[in-house]
Amino acid sequence: MCLLLRVNIIVRRCTILPVGQGQLIDHGLIAIKDGMIIYVGKQDDAPRFEADKVIDGHRKVAMPGLVNCHTHVAMSIFRGIAEDLELDKWLKETIWPLEAKLKPMDVYRGALLSCLEMIKNGITCFSDMYFHEDVVARAVKESGLRAVLAPGIIEAGDPERGQKMLDESISIAKSYHGYAGGRVTTQIGPHTAYTCSLDLLKKVCEAASSLKVGLHIHLAESRDAASIVKKLYGRGEVDLLSDMGFLGPDVLAAHCTQLSQEDIELLAESNVKVAYCPVANMKLASGICRAKELLDAGMTVGLGTDGPASNNTLDMFETMKFATLLQKTLYMDPRVLPAKRVLEMATMDGARALGIDEAAGSLEIGKKADLILIDVDKPHLTPMHDLYASLVYAARGSDVDTTIVDGKILMENRKVKTLDEDEVIEKGRETALDLISR
Amino acid sequence: MCLLLRVNIIVRRCTILPVGQGQLIDHGLIAIKDGMIIYVGKQDDAPRFEADKVIDGHRKVAMPGLVNCHTHVAMSIFRGIAEDLELDKWLKETIWPLEAKLKPMDVYRGALLSCLEMIKNGITCFSDMYFHEDVVARAVKESGLRAVLAPGIIEAGDPERGQKMLDESISIAKSYHGYAGGRVTTQIGPHTAYTCSLDLLKKVCEAASSLKVGLHIHLAESRDAASIVKKLYGRGEVDLLSDMGFLGPDVLAAHCTQLSQEDIELLAESNVKVAYCPVANMKLASGICRAKELLDAGMTVGLGTDGPASNNTLDMFETMKFATLLQKTLYMDPRVLPAKRVLEMATMDGARALGIDEAAGSLEIGKKADLILIDVDKPHLTPMHDLYASLVYAARGSDVDTTIVDGKILMENRKVKTLDEDEVIEKGRETALDLISR
Repeated sequence: MCLLLRVNIIVRRCTILPVGQGQLIDHGLIAIKDGMIIYVGKQDDAPRFEADKVIDGHRKVAMPGLVNCHTHVAMSIFRGIAEDLELDKWLKETIWPLEAKLKPMDVYRGALLSCLEMIKNGITCFSDMYFHEDVVARAVKESGLRAVLAPGIIEAGDPERGQKMLDESISIAKSYHGYAGGRVTTQIGPHTAYTCSLDLLKKVCEAASSLKVGLHIHLAESRDAASIVKKLYGRGEVDLLSDMGFLGPDVLAAHCTQLSQEDIELLAESNVKVAYCPVANMKLASGICRAKELLDAGMTVGLGTDGPASNNTLDMFETMKFATLLQKTLYMDPRVLPAKRVLEMATMDGARALGIDEAAGSLEIGKKADLILIDVDKPHLTPMHDLYASLVYAARGSDVDTTIVDGKILMENRKVKTLDEDEVIEKGRETALDLISR
Repeated sequence: MCLLLRVNIIVRRCTILPVGQGQLIDHGLIAIKDGMIIYVGKQDDAPRFEADKVIDGHRKVAMPGLVNCHTHVAMSIFRGIAEDLELDKWLKETIWPLEAKLKPMDVYRGALLSCLEMIKNGITCFSDMYFHEDVVARAVKESGLRAVLAPGIIEAGDPERGQKMLDESISIAKSYHGYAGGRVTTQIGPHTAYTCSLDLLKKVCEAASSLKVGLHIHLAESRDAASIVKKLYGRGEVDLLSDMGFLGPDVLAAHCTQLSQEDIELLAESNVKVAYCPVANMKLASGICRAKELLDAGMTVGLGTDGPASNNTLDMFETMKFATLLQKTLYMDPRVLPAKRVLEMATMDGARALGIDEAAGSLEIGKKADLILIDVDKPHLTPMHDLYASLVYAARGSDVDTTIVDGKILMENRKVKTLDEDEVIEKGRETALDLISR
């Protein structure tokens, strides 16, 4: 008599790129039970499984789902609304006036639209900073994705507003930490060092510390941002935040395009995590994050798409390609940030940056089953002399065939199962048109 | 009695982005007869057509096919074979030794694989420089694409080899100019100013002039290239070629990342056409083409993917996004090269750079019917506040639904009609493996 191990899903006959400690596996098998990976390895070495669902992974590559470390998902409804403009003008003349009119239902529909796009692009986890994160949480719950949500705080010279936003943030961070079966965790998201006062930032730190959640902030995003802080405080953003005790291992700092050598040392010492967003940084001409030097300094650097209004997509394959090509260009050296390293940044390092690396970021026994299958039977992925290069330099979101999060199939054969694609697109379109007509 | 105009194809109910002089058309109609556009405009204003084939363009955008101004299509079989290396090392240690083993059948299969990829990505015309362009011509004929083919010449210090390659180039340029019903035209392709002697370059110029075909050359591609020429001749590449009378309106110069202000003036005066290849330039860390300044100087600048071994895809949507984002970053100004301008570079300016702008590059009555339909019912293309921004910043090759060249449908609903997709992919894969095992 032969003992069969009962599991929920097996993916068979696939090439597996586990990331982390694991080596590339040909003819591999992955077994998933109760949302967890219970086997990843050679198919021939696997125990015998009896599965509720068998996925044939022939001519597919299985890899960890991509982790998008910095975005504002609701901004999908602003996609393309103000293009080829300076960041300051873009924010003040278009985005902020529209955001003032935003209702929770707009945020919900924009977030759902982005969740749909991310599932289709193989992103299994994202880190968001925006208003009304409670309805973003609802979209995350329905879509089946994993997310770290940071309610954003913009004081903008109005301490009463600042306190109110902090109170709301605390309330949301409390209520939604562990939401949707643990798929949602929370952070607090002070927008920047110049849109929040030092007083408020101190309170933010205290709140985060007492709630045991992290912080998500835009840091040294652009030359303009740097010069505003310089004007306000006579010093640099990193220096300022370091001195007030803001920086620490639970801080996720997005962008970081304006760092001095001293700043890098301060950030590395504090073990701050960085979200490098090359596409948005280039599109808004904000500057270039010296990601190579941050990595050399031993820092954790994840990748982010930034919001869909400043990118204009949520495609982490594209972001991986931009991420390394921009570093090669900055350092005038094609050897910088090789494909394998970029792939780690987009998965394992991203999970580490969000504090969820024990659960996600690689395909390992005992981790959550957050994984994607790439269909490699495509002309642009042929031949495949180098799997890492194919994934980073040639693949794109539309090559993702299957997306699994927490052991649940969110997309199979490019059909999304958790959301009604046509309806989400239609409602997103309606919401966008309605918003600009208000 | 109502008179019906008999045509081959009509595309109805589409949004039309004609490029060139034409404005955006909603509820548009395009009529194609004998390979030519005979109507493009409002559907309501159109004469009554009776068509052999009616394509419903509802929720699709019709635009001119993309023109890829610089590539080496056969190099698809090298995709991913040597990654994250310096250009010189990449060429000398991997590519050139493999190229020495290349047989015409390898080139044919590599070219077919790239033609398949280009059709799927909405590229309708490409400009190629490589060995065995006679078999590339065969692949172009079978695929249905349009191409400008330049047999490449590398003398490499061996005048006998140089003369032999020139003779072969002349023979191919003669035989294939006007091939495949006029879809193929030819150029002569001296590789660079340092892999061909000045003597040979003079002969090349004479041959091109007597054949009435253009020239396609790699110019000022990288710092290394510039320093080799400097060492050989004590001067810059542009200066050298200008002095010997090489430069003129029929010269297509690829890359141009190392130009001084004087170089730009010389190139503009000679009306040289430039192929800006941002992705490969960034990947190989060759430098940055100052495309904005070339455009400001009144030059024609098309876009190129470069070969699939140094990109690693043939996706001109991706190239458009890189093209503008790199310029915004170089000049630290997000207003540089707005989306509409980039789209012109990828279509109209590309056609002008290849000397085929009377036939292609825009949707106009009397031009060849080289056009694509983009399926915009996708989350990443929703909402569409700005069509130009959506196409340049959010669309990708996989959003192309239909590709038409010379009035013939090469792909419909993403199914390629002229090539057997599985077979082309399989043969490409086999060829690549066979080549490295030789």
